Amino acid sequence: MNADWINAIKWNAEGLVPVIAQEDSSGQVLMLAWMNEAALRATVATGEAVYWSRSRQKLWHKGETSGHSQRVKSLALDCDGDTLLLRVEQRGGIACHTGRPHCFFRRLESDRWQVVDAVKKDPRQIYGDDVQ
Amino acid sequence: MNADWINAIKWNAEGLVPVIAQEDSSGQVLMLAWMNEAALRATVATGEAVYWSRSRQKLWHKGETSGHSQRVKSLALDCDGDTLLLRVEQRGGIACHTGRPHCFFRRLESDRWQVVDAVKKDPRQIYGDDVQ
Repeated sequence: MNADWINAIKWNAEGLVPVIAQEDSSGQVLMLAWMNEAALRATVATGEAVYWSRSRQKLWHKGETSGHSQRVKSLALDCDGDTLLLRVEQRGGIACHTGRPHCFFRRLESDRWQVVDAVKKDPRQIYGDDVQ
Repeated sequence: MNADWINAIKWNAEGLVPVIAQEDSSGQVLMLAWMNEAALRATVATGEAVYWSRSRQKLWHKGETSGHSQRVKSLALDCDGDTLLLRVEQRGGIACHTGRPHCFFRRLESDRWQVVDAVKKDPRQIYGDDVQ
């Protein structure tokens, strides 16, 4: 494998890069997550989104518990080389651990965050009692 | 102004939060930038995107030099409270300092970053000789 492509990426002080996950079919921004080099290599090698969990400090194959994995459609790098845009097919139509289609379900309206997207599936049904 | 909405945001160790700017009409992800509290308050107060420039360490009213400002259409907060999604109308149709419509113009294809979007306007015409 040509290694040059990985050298174009500017990792932050923690060796991470932010990754915007976008639903390829609808254009909906699903979430922001982070990758280290191992996560990025695993994502490219498997065609499924693998992130670095900052809270758990380990590789996180998205959907490993929920089944809500993300199939990679395309991967793009920004002008500065410090952000990735991952277009995916979101399995189950749920990206958020709250059971919503995406994570940006609070919109600022009249100086308040209004919840504007409903829960599609109860997290207890997704994760059992071990709700994240 | 109700201050509660700003308290929902979890700033990182540098007092910043990543902001995904998305073209409201097309769904195209334009760029990732950062805001501190002052930038966010200015964005909400003026209805135009104001970021925190990490390289220049100062408030950055996007478009102040280029004219390519961003009019705010909506602002959303993610489940963890640590990422913002800003839907905007991009003036001039150019968000990137390279003169392209957006910053994610390099796509990974066969282990290489391929430039898949053309320059719309020469940066020297946008910024003069002081190209950023």
